[in-house]
Formats: sequence, C-alpha cells, structure tokens
Amino acid sequence: MLDFLDTPDRSAKPREEGITHALDDGVGVDEVRDRLEVCEEFVDIVKLGWGTGYVADRLEEKIALYQRRDIPVYFGGTLFEVTIRQGRFDAMVEELSELGVEHVEVSTGVIDLEHEEKCGYVDRLSEEFTVLSEVGRKDADEELTLEEWGGRAEREREAGAWKVIMEGRAGGDTGVYGDDGDVKAGLIEHTAERLGADSIVFEAPQTEQQAWFVERFGPEVNLGNVRLDDVIPLETLRRGLRGDTVETFHPETGVDRTEATTELAGIETDD
Amino acid sequence: MLDFLDTPDRSAKPREEGITHALDDGVGVDEVRDRLEVCEEFVDIVKLGWGTGYVADRLEEKIALYQRRDIPVYFGGTLFEVTIRQGRFDAMVEELSELGVEHVEVSTGVIDLEHEEKCGYVDRLSEEFTVLSEVGRKDADEELTLEEWGGRAEREREAGAWKVIMEGRAGGDTGVYGDDGDVKAGLIEHTAERLGADSIVFEAPQTEQQAWFVERFGPEVNLGNVRLDDVIPLETLRRGLRGDTVETFHPETGVDRTEATTELAGIETDD
Amino acid sequence: MLDFLDTPDRSAKPREEGITHALDDGVGVDEVRDRLEVCEEFVDIVKLGWGTGYVADRLEEKIALYQRRDIPVYFGGTLFEVTIRQGRFDAMVEELSELGVEHVEVSTGVIDLEHEEKCGYVDRLSEEFTVLSEVGRKDADEELTLEEWGGRAEREREAGAWKVIMEGRAGGDTGVYGDDGDVKAGLIEHTAERLGADSIVFEAPQTEQQAWFVERFGPEVNLGNVRLDDVIPLETLRRGLRGDTVETFHPETGVDRTEATTELAGIETDD
Repeated sequence: MLDFLDTPDRSAKPREEGITHALDDGVGVDEVRDRLEVCEEFVDIVKLGWGTGYVADRLEEKIALYQRRDIPVYFGGTLFEVTIRQGRFDAMVEELSELGVEHVEVSTGVIDLEHEEKCGYVDRLSEEFTVLSEVGRKDADEELTLEEWGGRAEREREAGAWKVIMEGRAGGDTGVYGDDGDVKAGLIEHTAERLGADSIVFEAPQTEQQAWFVERFGPEVNLGNVRLDDVIPLETLRRGLRGDTVETFHPETGVDRTEATTELAGIETDD
Repeated sequence: MLDFLDTPDRSAKPREEGITHALDDGVGVDEVRDRLEVCEEFVDIVKLGWGTGYVADRLEEKIALYQRRDIPVYFGGTLFEVTIRQGRFDAMVEELSELGVEHVEVSTGVIDLEHEEKCGYVDRLSEEFTVLSEVGRKDADEELTLEEWGGRAEREREAGAWKVIMEGRAGGDTGVYGDDGDVKAGLIEHTAERLGADSIVFEAPQTEQQAWFVERFGPEVNLGNVRLDDVIPLETLRRGLRGDTVETFHPETGVDRTEATTELAGIETDD
Repeated sequence: MLDFLDTPDRSAKPREEGITHALDDGVGVDEVRDRLEVCEEFVDIVKLGWGTGYVADRLEEKIALYQRRDIPVYFGGTLFEVTIRQGRFDAMVEELSELGVEHVEVSTGVIDLEHEEKCGYVDRLSEEFTVLSEVGRKDADEELTLEEWGGRAEREREAGAWKVIMEGRAGGDTGVYGDDGDVKAGLIEHTAERLGADSIVFEAPQTEQQAWFVERFGPEVNLGNVRLDDVIPLETLRRGLRGDTVETFHPETGVDRTEATTELAGIETDD
C-alpha cells in the first residue's frame, strides 16, 4: 500500500457515519467476491436492488458471501411494496427470517400508503429487523413539500428506522435530484438540519452527486445506491484523491513547494 | 429462493416468446460464466456484438461455454456486412460452420444492398443456419417509411428468417428510437400488427425502453441488445418487480390491506 | 479465430503507435486477469485512475498481474498533484520505486503550477521513470489557448516526456472536448501538427470520440482513458468492424458482389 499522503480521517467498520451503502443489481457471485477483495473495508451494507434478489439464482450463496464478511445485505424497497400490494406481509417476514436476512427496507416509492400506516410497518418490522425507511417517490410528478419530507423522515426515525434513505433512484434523476440529476440543495439542508445528517443515507449514484455531498458534509457522509463498481471511486472522493474533491481536502496552502521539494533545486528547466 | 409473491407467468426455455437476446460486447470468459450462473434461465440467445468476436481471444472457449448451456451464440450483423462488402460470403459460411455456430444475422445497417438481394442471402443462409434478419439503418438520416419497415420485415420472414430484429443499436438512439432514445410507437405498432409481435425481437438496450415494451406487449415480449449485466434487471421488469412496471402487473386492487396484515392491528403508530 | 476478412494493419507490441492506454478505475484483480485473457494483445499501458490505486486493496497483486504480462502500469496524475500540494515529492518517488512502478504521470489538471516548474518535474522524473505528461485542465472554465496547448506540449516533450496526454477526463467532457463531449478539432489538429500525432495520447473515453480519432488519424492513433471493458470495442473501431468505421476502412468498392457470391445465382428471392 502507498502511504505518503495525508488524507481525511475515516471511521472504521462497523460504521454509523461515513457509510457506503452499495447496490448489487444482480451481478454474479464471483464478481461480488472479486470486488469485495479490493474494497471490502469500504462497503458497509448492500442492497439487492429492487426485485433482483427475487429472480436471480444463487441467492443463498450471495447472501452468505456478504454475511461472512460482516456486510449486512437486504432486499430493495420495491419488494416490500409489491408485498404490501399483494397482502403478503406475513409470508415476506417469514421467508426473510428463514434466509437469515437482518435488514429490511420500507418504502412507498410506487404504492400509495397512508404515512401513518407506513410508520406502522416500520414499527412492526423494527422489532425483528434493522429497518431502513425511504422517503421520496420514484414518480417525479408527485413531489413532497420540504415540510413533508422532513416531517415524514422524522416520524419514521421515531417509529424505529435505523436510517432514513432519501430517494435518488438507481439513475439519480428523481427524489432529491431534478430531472437533470442536479441536487435539490434546499431539501437536503432542511432534512439534514431536522434529523442530523448522520441519520440519513443520501442516495447518490452519480459521481457528481457524490462529490457534492462529500464537499457539503465531509468524508463521513452516508451515501447510498453506490454501485459496487463505484465503491473505490467514491472512496477516492471521500479522501480528496479525485479531481472533484482535491481542492476540498488538500487546499492550496501557500506552502513553499520549492522548499519541500529541494531535489528540484539546480535543475535547469526547458524554458 | 424467495417465493411469496404472485408474478406474471413466463415461458420456459427453449422459448419462442419472451426471449431475452443478450449482447456480449467482448467481456471475459469467466465473467460470462459467472453471469450465466445467476441468470442462465433468462438468456435465450447471445450476440457477440458487431466485430468483437472477430478480434477477441478465446473465441472457441466462449462459444463452447454458451453452447454447453444450450444458449445459441452468433456474430453481430456488422460482420456479415463487411463480408458482403469484401465479397467473402463463401469464406464466412465456411468458417462459421467450422466453429459450430448455428445462427447468423443478416443486416444492412451500414452497407447498401437491394432488398431483394438481402432476402436472397436470408434464403440462402436459412438452409444452413437459423437466420435473424435486421430491419433498420444505423444511420438515423436514412430512415425508412412505415410501409417500408413493415413490408421488408414481412418479406424477410418469408425468405426464411426465424425472427426479424428491429434495429435499436447498442446505444438505443436510432432505428426504432429517436435521437433522444424515445420509442417510435407508430412504427412498432405497425410492424407488430403485420408480423405479430412474437416474430420480432425489439432491440431495447435502455431500461426505460425495456419498460415501455413490457408495458405494451407484456412479460413475453422479445427484447434484444440487452447487455449481460442487464438480464436480471430486465427479468424484474418482466415480472413487475421494478418500480417502472409494478403498476402494470400488480395494480392497486382495492383489497383491504389491513385485513391481510392483521399483525398490524393494535400497534400504535407515531402520529 | 475467424480470419476471412481484410482488416487494416496493426503494429505489434511493444507499440510506439496505435497505443491503447487503458483505465483501471479500481476493478477486482480477477476481473483484470479475465479481461486481459481476451484482449491482452491490445492493451499497451494501464493507468490506475486518479487515486484509486492509493485506496484499493491488493495493489501489489494487481501491479504484478499487469507486469507479468509486460503491461506497464502507473498511477493517475491526481496522485502526483496531491503529492505536490502536500510537498511529498521525495516520498512519492521512493514509494513508487519500491513498488517497482516504472511510469509516472505529471499533470496540472487541478493544481496551479508554473509551467516551467511542471517541466522541471518532467525532467527530474524522466531520469528514473518513463514520464507521461498531461496537458489540459479538468476545469472547463480555465481553458488554454491553441498556442498554449501546443507550446506546452512541445516543451514537456523536450523536458523528457515519453508521450503527451491530451486531457479528456474519464467522462470525456472537458479538455479536448466541449461540455457535450464534442471533439475540439482545431485544437487536435494544431497540436498534432506541432508534435506529430504519434507523440500524443488522446484521451477518448466515449465510443463516438474514439471513432472520430480513428477516422481522422487511422487505426494506429494513440488513445487513452479507454476503460478495460472498452478495449475490445475500440479494437473493432480500429479495424473497421463496428458500424462507425466500416465505411472508413471498407469503402464501397464498386466490386460486382454477385460475381463474388455466385452461390446466390439462381435462387429465387421473395419479391
């Protein structure tokens, strides 16, 4: 390992802050193993995106692989939503328990559910599972007001959610983002102020979005929907080792570089 | 495997409908094996994209890997087109036969060929191979009329094509799509009506495009140019297990959810 | 291997022209091995992008894997820039030497450095390493004039750079590209004329950009920031085996195709 630079401090696992919440969208089991061997230290929790865990083969093997490395793994909120739509809540709880899954996501990205009822599910599930509850709709047309986002997030935490996820979708084009992927800064600030940024996982699938959050909240911000491929690139953003955040973490100091690099003295340059 | 939800019926392999036609753009052989181990059941046929099969190493090994799993594999239409351009038709047929490849694509995405001549190749090749013939140009400026698309597709089927592919390119920005990736619905409807949707493979590389076809034609639509990475995500679309198609396959039923989830009764919610 | 087509000549490794400079952005070690097994012949040099090599595990293993296959590997310019910012030049040189890395990149994509000073680093490093120096800023707002690009590139070559890299970033949206990814042709022509195209590695992460350079400079153009996934697709562009460059390398010849494909004679077509 290289070790000649100063980089921002990062907490160690298991983390409550600085969480990288990764998205597994149905990749192969060997690929997961291979990826984790270079980035395991930076993966805090993994979501088997939407219903991919329901259809892909070798599910038990994949879950075991993550769990052997102490990385919790759970199913995307869409599975919960279809479950509710079909009235299969008990069956879901039973099968998840049998699989040994210890986390669950409660969301209303697509289905309509009274917020009170949603909080009921958070409460009920938090007796048995660690609950992540997601605020935000996948449909950009049905947006919540600032107050609604904040209030709902707060009540879901009170109902027992470990973290509140702020919706950004796998594509990063809805929820806390506009159609063009731009961050809705006012919404972020409002919610972070009410709950504390460490209670929130911000879904941020795109590099520019990740850079924005790292610049705003520092290296220990919780970021979600990060593809397994992007865990290492995100870690470089957190440490100021990618162009986007170099200036944030390694500001121009006014240090006399010539002094620090005396070996250059006396070398004739070309112009 | 999880098994607590109702999802739309899907046919079993070998399929004539509900085909997922996957694109291998030159990935490694181990990656293919690893991917197939989680999604083999949903991959019906694989195209080695354009000329990638001509330049990548370990070609025989890759073909054997697919064929051992009863997944037909063939070379992208660009290879056929360059062959015609260079007058090497006989040599192509000979080398493909030696490789044990049993499918071939006839296209005129780039080269100019009288349609009658194209149909001649379909006819000739269909004696020895299963032929996929592609309608559409890669160049967006040379678009065909509705009648031309439909008529040509029809004649290529009559000449012996197993399926007609409607061009969308790997990028999903031409053929049946506009520059912005939007679906040309009128063209699709017209051709599907004339040939029957089950005779057509619609190239649909992007998630939104796949969702559109699944909503329009149901879970058993034939979709092509699906990256190996996207086979599992597509399968979730076909089953209503991704946000985009939840509403299509699991509509709001008016069922009294409270009844179905009695365990929530009596739980005090937070507001 | 298939071998029935004429394709443009390509030089063999080790290459001085026709270089594919690949980007490893933190992928797993098995994935690297697997990819190289299908495209090793076409990978000339690999950059561990920006600071990914600093944070990912199994660094030594990955370096050994590339070097065993005679593929030089080095660290992205951002690492050099943070080093200079922190005044750790000597430490960097020492650690790189210990790792057995033989190439280094000098860039000023983010940091401010007098050009004379930059050339001093090129000169100093070229005593011990093979130096790639990069011209261009990551920040699109601080663009250089045509003369500045050309002049700087020239002086960096004189200072000892093996090749000059023209900045395009991993995203292909700055440096020699506009915000929309379009190529700045005037800039390219000017610099290529002054230095010779073979002294330059053009960063070209997107397919359309790669096709542009291959059409303009031929199959032996040096292209950089090519993802490992895209090495095979790029090779098809260089040989006219992808739609984008078929016309370039296999022009309509006026050859009588009917003669070359006599087996079609007598076949009744469908219209």
